Amino acid sequence: MRLIQHALVLFVAAWLSPASGTAQTAVPDAGLVEDLVAANRILFDQGVVDGFGHISVRHDKDPNRYLMARNIAPALVKAEDIMEFDLDSNAVDLRGRRIYLERFIHGEIYKLRPDVKAVIHSHSPSVIPFGVARARLQPIYHMSAFLGTDVPVFEIRDVAGAGTDLLVRNAALGRALAQVLGSHTVALMRGHGSVTVGNSIPQVVFRAVYTEMNARLQAEAMRLGTVTFLTPEEAEKAAETIDGQVMRPWELWKRKAMKAE
Amino acid sequence: MRLIQHALVLFVAAWLSPASGTAQTAVPDAGLVEDLVAANRILFDQGVVDGFGHISVRHDKDPNRYLMARNIAPALVKAEDIMEFDLDSNAVDLRGRRIYLERFIHGEIYKLRPDVKAVIHSHSPSVIPFGVARARLQPIYHMSAFLGTDVPVFEIRDVAGAGTDLLVRNAALGRALAQVLGSHTVALMRGHGSVTVGNSIPQVVFRAVYTEMNARLQAEAMRLGTVTFLTPEEAEKAAETIDGQVMRPWELWKRKAMKAE
Amino acid sequence: MRLIQHALVLFVAAWLSPASGTAQTAVPDAGLVEDLVAANRILFDQGVVDGFGHISVRHDKDPNRYLMARNIAPALVKAEDIMEFDLDSNAVDLRGRRIYLERFIHGEIYKLRPDVKAVIHSHSPSVIPFGVARARLQPIYHMSAFLGTDVPVFEIRDVAGAGTDLLVRNAALGRALAQVLGSHTVALMRGHGSVTVGNSIPQVVFRAVYTEMNARLQAEAMRLGTVTFLTPEEAEKAAETIDGQVMRPWELWKRKAMKAE
Amino acid sequence: MRLIQHALVLFVAAWLSPASGTAQTAVPDAGLVEDLVAANRILFDQGVVDGFGHISVRHDKDPNRYLMARNIAPALVKAEDIMEFDLDSNAVDLRGRRIYLERFIHGEIYKLRPDVKAVIHSHSPSVIPFGVARARLQPIYHMSAFLGTDVPVFEIRDVAGAGTDLLVRNAALGRALAQVLGSHTVALMRGHGSVTVGNSIPQVVFRAVYTEMNARLQAEAMRLGTVTFLTPEEAEKAAETIDGQVMRPWELWKRKAMKAE
Repeated sequence: MRLIQHALVLFVAAWLSPASGTAQTAVPDAGLVEDLVAANRILFDQGVVDGFGHISVRHDKDPNRYLMARNIAPALVKAEDIMEFDLDSNAVDLRGRRIYLERFIHGEIYKLRPDVKAVIHSHSPSVIPFGVARARLQPIYHMSAFLGTDVPVFEIRDVAGAGTDLLVRNAALGRALAQVLGSHTVALMRGHGSVTVGNSIPQVVFRAVYTEMNARLQAEAMRLGTVTFLTPEEAEKAAETIDGQVMRPWELWKRKAMKAE
Repeated sequence: MRLIQHALVLFVAAWLSPASGTAQTAVPDAGLVEDLVAANRILFDQGVVDGFGHISVRHDKDPNRYLMARNIAPALVKAEDIMEFDLDSNAVDLRGRRIYLERFIHGEIYKLRPDVKAVIHSHSPSVIPFGVARARLQPIYHMSAFLGTDVPVFEIRDVAGAGTDLLVRNAALGRALAQVLGSHTVALMRGHGSVTVGNSIPQVVFRAVYTEMNARLQAEAMRLGTVTFLTPEEAEKAAETIDGQVMRPWELWKRKAMKAE
Repeated sequence: MRLIQHALVLFVAAWLSPASGTAQTAVPDAGLVEDLVAANRILFDQGVVDGFGHISVRHDKDPNRYLMARNIAPALVKAEDIMEFDLDSNAVDLRGRRIYLERFIHGEIYKLRPDVKAVIHSHSPSVIPFGVARARLQPIYHMSAFLGTDVPVFEIRDVAGAGTDLLVRNAALGRALAQVLGSHTVALMRGHGSVTVGNSIPQVVFRAVYTEMNARLQAEAMRLGTVTFLTPEEAEKAAETIDGQVMRPWELWKRKAMKAE
Repeated sequence: MRLIQHALVLFVAAWLSPASGTAQTAVPDAGLVEDLVAANRILFDQGVVDGFGHISVRHDKDPNRYLMARNIAPALVKAEDIMEFDLDSNAVDLRGRRIYLERFIHGEIYKLRPDVKAVIHSHSPSVIPFGVARARLQPIYHMSAFLGTDVPVFEIRDVAGAGTDLLVRNAALGRALAQVLGSHTVALMRGHGSVTVGNSIPQVVFRAVYTEMNARLQAEAMRLGTVTFLTPEEAEKAAETIDGQVMRPWELWKRKAMKAE
């Protein structure tokens, strides 16, 4: 814990006196940065991300900015790796650091969805098959009720043809993905991965973990017979109830993931 | 071990002089509380529960009371988190603590089944598909012979319609589930999880672990061809034999789960 | 390592001056006992056994005796838990210790197979489905070539009817199983597990690990299409070559499994 | 890290003054040897190899030589285990050490493919079924785009009949495999495993890890429905983009695998 405190002090110092002379908007809440670091570790520990994938959070002092790590494996993220981006996904203070090619996923979703405070992009393994086989991902139990009645699939070929590198590497592709996501909580990306949104870091992490779990359990259930999914009303009510419980696994996951610190 | 002893002393002290002025019935056996804490950790370590799920034990001094942790991830449970409930699932000494929404599962089963001394509710992953695909869970080897010839499925829609949040959040739903369980050892809950009962903490933990294992192995076997399940007589005899061996894995699981202490 | 040395000294002392006054035949080679302890830990670490299952080795000083742990989870076995049995599976010096109900598996195989020096009985998970679905287990790659052209299945109903507890709990059942095993390296036991034999502890452990792996890979391959298995000649030649390599994984597994010591 | 430095000093000393009097060509770059050791550990840690499998790298000072460990489990490889081989796969300075029977896989590929700087041979589990069921392995997402449009299968029976031990135990078999590999990045070996090539150690490790992952995800996707694979153009472009990111997981994997040091 003392290491974390120390890291946060360094983080604030760097934020206010950048090498390039261009300071960021405002120092974000220290707890928010700590949670963002923890979330990176948790997502690795829970098998949602491997060396790839990223999570961002909307800036608590400025809704037109978001925070995300520099280009680094999520499991290795520290407070000093957190950077600020505007909604066009430009780094506010680049200082020569490498940044994620697909940061536009985040910026464009924040533009279209004012309710969204946190975004995860991952290649979580059980979800990939649903994107490429076009099997409809649906909630099979209360824990994944947030999936609602429909999880849309983003097919990059629809907007950019069949000759891309599949990456959401510019604002136009990010916007197209955000439009497919619409008002949903999760969108699959064919041949690539998925994107999950939420109104807080613990909520979006919860959703990413249970989207992966639902995909695994649904694939298994479909091999056993005809599956009874949640009705729209069950999904809506269960999502609301479970939403009140997201801090319970968050505390567990955080403790487990930060143990190595 | 000294930490555990210390925790138990604190636990007893708190039990006898509650903040609210209403003392619990009687101090339960220290070994029982220690086993309940260990069982919480074991269930997480063995993959039966994640951040959710709970285990209770009937009070050894009063059959009309049961013990269960406050609302917390099972892996984090300590002796001081153990609370006492009456069979209507009211906390005897709440002291403002959050409690599990689905505690009625436990209370109502204890009412209907005087032989039951311990209850587990979990979302153990291999079991979920059997609940939603309505595939019949059956014992495929001696270790899970306690499943007997029939594992009933509780469909909440049958008693409360298709618009619930799927949670067993009141006594009526708990009673309906207990009735579906009947004299069985395990009942599946469609779109939710399962419930397992036993005559001791080690036995119910054993059953929860091997229910999960049976589901995993049965799903695999069904993909290979027609499965030969245990006959009712094989199930009955094997269950009796294996019952004499439940302390063997218990010692192993306990040592493994408590190691981090 | 010093702990292991110390344990072996205690083991030899106990062996020579038993509480009951009846000394065992002869002190077995210390390396053999150390390997037997290590094998117990390895089998747990590699997922072949859980809280159940056992491994024995023929006594190096007397071919009519074998060594095996008392009734305890394999992961917890220490040198002082090793006991001596005659081929009728009587403990030579019981001293009130609980012993495995299914020790007859070992004794009866040693009687019928003078070439066998070590025996493992397990419920390794990927193998169970092959026993109950009667899918033929066959070698799909060189590593499991020792499976040869045929892995027989022991159906206890054939010799004792459909009302047993499935356990090989006496000499007659042990003999029937040994006869089904015949000259093979592995036999499946319907609704129960499997038995593996070898000419040394490292070899039998190797075989148990790769029988489990073959079952897992074969089940997966059968879902992809028609499988090309090894020809009898390929199996024979590959088994011979791979046999010269069993010490390579043994060293790795031993180091990994004994690390916690 | 100091242990690693020390190991490298010993390594260089041994390299220059061999017991047999025949010095190796030239001392390879210390970073290259360190990476080769790390790669051995990473491949084990990531589940690509178990007690078997090997990785080699072309000598940085002499393209007609390559470096590989002596016959030992990859997870146990240290700098002093690294040996030098000529392209006919003769050890330059044997000193009585046991060497891998299948080293010809490496030497013959280096002969035919001047662009290849590193080679991995493994039995990674999800890949085996594709070799024996002759299901075509194809890239299902950008991460495994390097698989391109075709992964050839080497059937040893085509060149040596159905009575081999399946091992690539001589130069003729190595050459036949290298020819089947052709200009591809991966070739499957029926009833055995696979071989992966790259232009650096981090790249070949990346490819081996994601070949395994692709096999696992593709098998799962094929069970859900008709799979949309990458088009040739998508594969080509994504492979190029992802190639610029291989150091990101490498740093993570290295840190994780070397932690036990």
